[in-house]
Amino acid sequence: MKKFEDNSFMLHTDLYQINMIKTYYMKNMHNTRAVFEAYFRNMPFTNGYAIFAGLERIIDYVKDLRFTESDLEYLKTLGYEEAFLSYLKGFKFTGTIRAMHEGEVVFNNEPLVQVDTTLAEAQLMETAILNIINYQTLIATKASRLRELVPNDQLMEFGTRRAHEFDAAIWGARAAIIGGFDGTSNVRAAKKFGITPSGTHAHAMVQAFGDDYRAFKAYAETHKECVFLVDTFDTIKSGIPNAIKVADEMGDKINFIGIRLDSGDIAYLSKVARKMLDEAGYPNAKVIVSNDLDEMTILSLKSQGAKVDGWGIGTKLITAYDQPALGAVYKLSAIEVDGELVDRMKISGNVEKLTTPGKKEVYRIINNETGKSEGDYITRFGEEIDTSKELFMFDPVHTVKRKYVKNFTPVKKLNDIFVDGELVYRKRTIAEIKQVRIDRLEELWEENRRLVKPQIYPVDLSLKLWTDRQKLIEDLSEREI
Amino acid sequence: MKKFEDNSFMLHTDLYQINMIKTYYMKNMHNTRAVFEAYFRNMPFTNGYAIFAGLERIIDYVKDLRFTESDLEYLKTLGYEEAFLSYLKGFKFTGTIRAMHEGEVVFNNEPLVQVDTTLAEAQLMETAILNIINYQTLIATKASRLRELVPNDQLMEFGTRRAHEFDAAIWGARAAIIGGFDGTSNVRAAKKFGITPSGTHAHAMVQAFGDDYRAFKAYAETHKECVFLVDTFDTIKSGIPNAIKVADEMGDKINFIGIRLDSGDIAYLSKVARKMLDEAGYPNAKVIVSNDLDEMTILSLKSQGAKVDGWGIGTKLITAYDQPALGAVYKLSAIEVDGELVDRMKISGNVEKLTTPGKKEVYRIINNETGKSEGDYITRFGEEIDTSKELFMFDPVHTVKRKYVKNFTPVKKLNDIFVDGELVYRKRTIAEIKQVRIDRLEELWEENRRLVKPQIYPVDLSLKLWTDRQKLIEDLSEREI
Repeated sequence: MKKFEDNSFMLHTDLYQINMIKTYYMKNMHNTRAVFEAYFRNMPFTNGYAIFAGLERIIDYVKDLRFTESDLEYLKTLGYEEAFLSYLKGFKFTGTIRAMHEGEVVFNNEPLVQVDTTLAEAQLMETAILNIINYQTLIATKASRLRELVPNDQLMEFGTRRAHEFDAAIWGARAAIIGGFDGTSNVRAAKKFGITPSGTHAHAMVQAFGDDYRAFKAYAETHKECVFLVDTFDTIKSGIPNAIKVADEMGDKINFIGIRLDSGDIAYLSKVARKMLDEAGYPNAKVIVSNDLDEMTILSLKSQGAKVDGWGIGTKLITAYDQPALGAVYKLSAIEVDGELVDRMKISGNVEKLTTPGKKEVYRIINNETGKSEGDYITRFGEEIDTSKELFMFDPVHTVKRKYVKNFTPVKKLNDIFVDGELVYRKRTIAEIKQVRIDRLEELWEENRRLVKPQIYPVDLSLKLWTDRQKLIEDLSEREI
Repeated sequence: MKKFEDNSFMLHTDLYQINMIKTYYMKNMHNTRAVFEAYFRNMPFTNGYAIFAGLERIIDYVKDLRFTESDLEYLKTLGYEEAFLSYLKGFKFTGTIRAMHEGEVVFNNEPLVQVDTTLAEAQLMETAILNIINYQTLIATKASRLRELVPNDQLMEFGTRRAHEFDAAIWGARAAIIGGFDGTSNVRAAKKFGITPSGTHAHAMVQAFGDDYRAFKAYAETHKECVFLVDTFDTIKSGIPNAIKVADEMGDKINFIGIRLDSGDIAYLSKVARKMLDEAGYPNAKVIVSNDLDEMTILSLKSQGAKVDGWGIGTKLITAYDQPALGAVYKLSAIEVDGELVDRMKISGNVEKLTTPGKKEVYRIINNETGKSEGDYITRFGEEIDTSKELFMFDPVHTVKRKYVKNFTPVKKLNDIFVDGELVYRKRTIAEIKQVRIDRLEELWEENRRLVKPQIYPVDLSLKLWTDRQKLIEDLSEREI
């Protein structure tokens, strides 16, 4: 078997995309204009909002969208014809992509990424775009839930060893930072993305030296910043006293940041540790904890008065343990027919898989008096919102849930990323992206930000979009009968 | 902020590893010999066995274990001293790694990967080794559960869009094949690993053409092998009849492999589809299904007599949805002290985190009469098993569970991968690895392979290893009081 070894991402797609592109090409439909939109149907973790992430990686992917020689050679072994392969040889992205900023607060059933380009290009990109945003948005959202829970504590991402392979470790670390974390243990992620790496030592070092004291002392003699892991043998009898002993002996030579607990009962041990550190004259030494933490464990620990200053979160964050898939989809919403863009909709056997047809725009309706959002309002692309009149907002399923909003500002949420194949978006720094989340969350009511059973945020359709959708459902249903 | 852009995996580690290495270096312990072993504590999915995967990636990682200029430059920005950085500059792997074959049937609490090298090297590698085996072993095991459920059906991995970023998509696809799957939708994985890509078309193509018939006809006119996706509009009234119509019209020009269902009630629709295909004269046309399938759904569908020939499994496999982390750990088991290898053990506050000390060997005890395994038997490295005598096997926790085995063959399970820094292992082909799983599963009783509540397979310690462990626990406990 021939080995194909390169790092091309071009075939990071499903085989059916290539097969459809071939059909489009042979039926001369490959250059037909088509609009696809990516969105998710259900809020992850039943949270009241999600945090969008993945754009940086999408930009890098789209910029380099070229089949390599080795890609084409491989496809040839699968039996694709020369004519089709030469078409693929000249393949590149020529259209428009609009997307949310990373760090944006987003909701279910609204377009997060919109691809308006040729049918062939849009189809090829589906798999990678979903692969990217599904994971990164999930982790940024999970991180944001944790951040809301402990607004003033230190939050560190420690999950690499349990991440789903290498990419998840580094892009998950970045997503955690976007969602409000302070640092990551993964040095490669820190290097690549300019984020803060975090970590001092593990149990293995204590085992290597044979006891707590020698290990802590050796660490303190070789590092200025010290957090001692105190639970290798006996936390209360050996770990904490030896950490204090070393801090006493080293004095100003080190910065005794604190101790870390990684096993045992965190509520009890953190209170004991706090007391021992205070009594030893280290009121500023922090108690940092780790060990399979998630939102509910932290909530419960805090309700018992655990004295914790910093949290290292691994497995439960990096794998989104309680809901490890976001389920975002990428659906055709419009296609060019005889020179005109025509709505497309998927009916399907599952009602929840019904799509909303047409190329769309997403607005956040900000109340000018409160500064808070009244909800998201999805319109047809190009549809105008008259701010001089009251805006009629209603739930697209339970239409009796309705309201009239006045004195509002509609804020467009989709930004041009690529236009006519050219990158027009300035990539944001990680600091800017972190700030996007903070600013946008300010526009939500507390009720939407609650960890458990939040108030559901309205994501409405404009009357025009809703009516067009209803009409298309009836047209399609009639045709089938 | 300076951008550090390269693809080095050297910093794909936790910061604490670098900090510990610095302490070891400055205390002249970096070249001390140390043995670390990777294992998991609990069976994933409460399955009766796990399938090991990840070795291929570990080999690639270890072979290239060198700090790049950019890695060192980055570490300098974090404040590491020149002396330490020049030591890192010459860093490479110099020791021995032993591991299970990929595809091997493995169990909890036995070493899967054993690293015997310098303390510094072993520490650096921990994070990446766990990142790799935790994910790949999890997915191979999940895939094997699905394969056991439908031994003769086609099984395709369709999960890329829901995978945790790019690496999980391709290494997860490979792990699925190791676990018994037939193919993957991911073309890059197929190209890279020499596995079979699978897929024809999506709903979007039906929407693009506007109806089932035109879409299927176009596909059939441009491809020989045809599976038609029949649920875009109405499965029974439009999808299946149009698939049959196109198959009739195209005759021998295509290979009508069958249809795919991706929504609606699979049990009902598959039976209707089977009947319609049979009556239309296509008894060999297959019914392939997808849509959020997992073991329990398949079990339930089959118990209702669903007529399914092939299964496309996405989200639930590639994310290991019901248990998205294996939880393998990598623990120091022995270290050189005054020229001698001395046992090390972690006590910790959580009893389940107790480790088993010493460098170990793993044997599978095959009964010569039945050809089946009596259990795994972990000894000290170098400990001899006398096959002329009965072997005393007992549960290391519930020691009253015991038996004497005679007429057996002890089979060593750990293979040399690197010796003195040199790769000595011949990388296996994917076909060989698939066969390892099949052959090794033959040695288990059916009771150990049951999907739900399997009989627990014995993983025992030799009397010597068990006694040494007990003694060390008492020594350590005494010292603390």
